Amino acid sequence: MSDPRVIAPSHEALEAEIRATCTRARSAAHRLAELDTTAKDRALIACADTLAARRSIVLEANAEDLARARTAGHTAAFLDRLRLDDARLDDMFAMLHEVRALPDPVGLVTRGWRRPNGLLVEKVRIPLGVIAIVYEARPNVTIDAAALCLKSGNACVLRGGSEARASNTALVGVMQSALEASGLPTAAVQTPPTPGREAVSLLVKQVGLVDLVIPRGGEGLIRAVTEEARVPVIQHFKGVCHAFLDATADPEMTRRIVLNAKAQRPGVCNALECLLVHADAASTLLPPLAADLRAAGVELRGCERTRALLPGATPATEDDWGREFLDLVIAVRLVDSLDAAIAHIRRYGSEHTELIVTRDVRNARAFVQRVTASCVIVNASTRFNDGGQLGLGAEIGISTSRLHAFGPMGLEALTTEKFVVFGDGQVRA
Amino acid sequence: MSDPRVIAPSHEALEAEIRATCTRARSAAHRLAELDTTAKDRALIACADTLAARRSIVLEANAEDLARARTAGHTAAFLDRLRLDDARLDDMFAMLHEVRALPDPVGLVTRGWRRPNGLLVEKVRIPLGVIAIVYEARPNVTIDAAALCLKSGNACVLRGGSEARASNTALVGVMQSALEASGLPTAAVQTPPTPGREAVSLLVKQVGLVDLVIPRGGEGLIRAVTEEARVPVIQHFKGVCHAFLDATADPEMTRRIVLNAKAQRPGVCNALECLLVHADAASTLLPPLAADLRAAGVELRGCERTRALLPGATPATEDDWGREFLDLVIAVRLVDSLDAAIAHIRRYGSEHTELIVTRDVRNARAFVQRVTASCVIVNASTRFNDGGQLGLGAEIGISTSRLHAFGPMGLEALTTEKFVVFGDGQVRA
Repeated sequence: MSDPRVIAPSHEALEAEIRATCTRARSAAHRLAELDTTAKDRALIACADTLAARRSIVLEANAEDLARARTAGHTAAFLDRLRLDDARLDDMFAMLHEVRALPDPVGLVTRGWRRPNGLLVEKVRIPLGVIAIVYEARPNVTIDAAALCLKSGNACVLRGGSEARASNTALVGVMQSALEASGLPTAAVQTPPTPGREAVSLLVKQVGLVDLVIPRGGEGLIRAVTEEARVPVIQHFKGVCHAFLDATADPEMTRRIVLNAKAQRPGVCNALECLLVHADAASTLLPPLAADLRAAGVELRGCERTRALLPGATPATEDDWGREFLDLVIAVRLVDSLDAAIAHIRRYGSEHTELIVTRDVRNARAFVQRVTASCVIVNASTRFNDGGQLGLGAEIGISTSRLHAFGPMGLEALTTEKFVVFGDGQVRA
Repeated sequence: MSDPRVIAPSHEALEAEIRATCTRARSAAHRLAELDTTAKDRALIACADTLAARRSIVLEANAEDLARARTAGHTAAFLDRLRLDDARLDDMFAMLHEVRALPDPVGLVTRGWRRPNGLLVEKVRIPLGVIAIVYEARPNVTIDAAALCLKSGNACVLRGGSEARASNTALVGVMQSALEASGLPTAAVQTPPTPGREAVSLLVKQVGLVDLVIPRGGEGLIRAVTEEARVPVIQHFKGVCHAFLDATADPEMTRRIVLNAKAQRPGVCNALECLLVHADAASTLLPPLAADLRAAGVELRGCERTRALLPGATPATEDDWGREFLDLVIAVRLVDSLDAAIAHIRRYGSEHTELIVTRDVRNARAFVQRVTASCVIVNASTRFNDGGQLGLGAEIGISTSRLHAFGPMGLEALTTEKFVVFGDGQVRA
């Protein structure tokens, strides 16, 4: 796979190849949907064992990708996301066992009732079918996504960034060998037959063969996939997370929460990007908070009233509201009421994670009811909007779509429910 | 609205108008999401009362649409769908009260748990936001959709077929007057500002303002909307419903169920289109069944083996498998096993409604587990795949998408769930 093809296949040939890949995936999905939990768990153990046995092969493939990426002049951050090492392979191994240990969502009867005519109606969880995942050059996503899809009975087509193609080929090889050894179809985990943008463009148009596409990565990737897709897409857009510090916020709790939300890991989507501070408490709350944040290396960009209290703050521009800094920068704005805070969040928020710090139960209640976001938090760090932290187990991402899944997507979000009706000869009058 | 505009607005002007409509809808959606059940129920009663008071205005508008449609040479079936009369207005009135009486899905805490660190996590039902509904010239859909959206706290933009524009304008006027009288925003129920295809095309691209589009109507309409949309779409594709008559099927029950499923209302999506008959029982099951069906005016199109048992049957062609006749026609095929029946359903079915008639509990179980469809039925008519019949109350359609909703969509399918987290100062380690 390290030699790029010299002759690109024709559009028709490529389309036929993609369709063949997805048709094999569909057929594998039928098999997977019928498996009991034990069979899927055994396959996940086999995946972990095969990964352990092929450690050096995977690392060699990754070294090849890294060398190519270095030559191509990619950034240190890019190379870091691309890099595999023993510790990261250990994490993958642990993750496979963690997913194996999660409860199987498939087959669960979520509700059931009897109709007056005696029909028994049930809603039963089933896999979605075939899931395409389009992501950047992060080889860990390959194993995460494959494991979550396998446990939830879905076949997957994994299209990672082409800079990681040797690593991904090696990792998909691990999964396929383990599937084969477990007597399961290798087509349950596949990559598109050819690299290149055109393959993605065709993959996301396979209506009837692909049930869902999940783009994971930067906003550009997500917008491109959403624009081209004709199958359903669940987006994981940016997290522009706000904290509203109410007039009654406990100063000590505020400092602890804001520092954690902003500085514990600033480069992730559930990190805090903007503080909305009730004007009545700003003079008490802001100065110690600003000292903490500055000590952690955070730059503050404040509105005019903020700068009256914090003369050292950079002036915030209109661009700073609604901005995902993903860095040690925070926007700060004074607001005169809960209503004003909610209005700011509705205008600039991304419906990812929104937080209120308050001691007032009525304001907590109003904030929770009136703010729409995948996760609305009272008095805790925004960093808890995460599948593991909320108790869902491993996650495939955090949806900011409202359809189907809103928030961290665990195994359950990779399933749907069908109606099952048991009768005894009933007909409609 | 009955005078078509002489000068069409420019694309830019139309786009600005659509965006303004959707922005008003978004703002109304924020209001609706905060309403308690009583306020929504009072508005629904006001809608019913206003409809009753404006009966003659609505009928006059409909008469105008009917006259234009007659002049345009539309079919009798088309005119029938377009027609309103006292009985149909009575049905609308009753439906408004029926929706009012349904339980409010919004605000329901569907699950909740405590994390080891003391965080309380809840999943809470919230409205989807703004829903666009694109449908044909069936004015009853206008009131149905508006009522279901209002009860579930969603704003809606209703784009019905242009042949029904006077009727729809009158009906949306009824809803808006009732909303206004109830102190609710009239923008909760709107139509696009201009008729024409371009308005639909722009409406389904309002990412960030429209949360869902539901196309209702023929396959052409649904495919066109799916192709153009950039916001999530839930499709209601055709129902190619099969019945597998197992070798152990009770002959009397089979006759009752098949006759009902095929002939009680052949023009609807949950009507039966294809019989798969186990070869071991075909000589017992088929002749009396064929006599019943023929007596009901149903044409049988059989495979070769079927015709050996039923010499009068029309030869089935490849086109007859997977076909939605929506008429008094049924395809009949002999199969040698449950596996063969499932293989046929996977190849030709539309994942709408699939039925097994059997006395064998093992086969019932295997069919239910292995067949993917929005509703899988054992020993009852396919006609039960309907929101009212399954106990969901009024429905906005039957989804054959697997994402978000699969099967009849009632109020709950017009909502999503957000996470709500209550802490006491927790931060991530």
